[in-house]
Amino acid sequence: MAYDDQNIFARILRGELPAIKVYEDDKVLAFMDIMPQAEGHTLIIPKTPAITLLDLPGEDAAYTIQIVQKIAKAIEKGLGAKGIVLMQLSGASAGQTVPHVHFHLIPSSVHELGKHAATMGDTDKIKAQAEKIKSAL
Amino acid sequence: MAYDDQNIFARILRGELPAIKVYEDDKVLAFMDIMPQAEGHTLIIPKTPAITLLDLPGEDAAYTIQIVQKIAKAIEKGLGAKGIVLMQLSGASAGQTVPHVHFHLIPSSVHELGKHAATMGDTDKIKAQAEKIKSAL
Repeated sequence: MAYDDQNIFARILRGELPAIKVYEDDKVLAFMDIMPQAEGHTLIIPKTPAITLLDLPGEDAAYTIQIVQKIAKAIEKGLGAKGIVLMQLSGASAGQTVPHVHFHLIPSSVHELGKHAATMGDTDKIKAQAEKIKSAL
Repeated sequence: MAYDDQNIFARILRGELPAIKVYEDDKVLAFMDIMPQAEGHTLIIPKTPAITLLDLPGEDAAYTIQIVQKIAKAIEKGLGAKGIVLMQLSGASAGQTVPHVHFHLIPSSVHELGKHAATMGDTDKIKAQAEKIKSAL
């Protein structure tokens, strides 16, 4: 399958769509999930165009996971999260909805996932969480 | 919290407990989950003693995620998996049960997770899946 450069994360990376960013460098972007499964739900994406983790060059995966660690620590510190679920879905059959590889960090329990309807979160609340995460980076 | 070197993954790493291994090198071990959430459920662990992803040195995380990619490709090829869920739980509050950092690769959908009781799988079946993954490495 060819990479679709009109997917929403590609558009966010190009600045065509807004995002509540918590971290950005030349290789990776981290931003808040606007349909959060829990308070503080953050997405980390490599800037390299790749659909799944299986397509992503190893060096990009190696770099991205270290940023995932960095953000996880900031979520723990900034939001007082006790447990964090890292999830990454490869393929529509796994539940992947946006065809650009992304890592979820969800301050919650695996037993709570999927219980919530996929609905828009409160933007002001999400922005406040983002500020706390950024402060803890 | 101090690392408990009697946890079952530490004991597997020392060879004190058996495991159905699919890959091993000097830094990482991959083996079958004996209470699988789906056929082909594999665990990948760094050999460095660390409880969660937040404790793991960055270089170990960087290396381990590349082995996760390698195993994911073998699961796709060897078992014909259409979608793969990568999951990593940090903290008992997230649902982590063994206090040694581990990555789950589950050829399933996020919407199916947690629906199955945590019960022992059929060892012969799991061994056959392991052989298919190893052949595809």
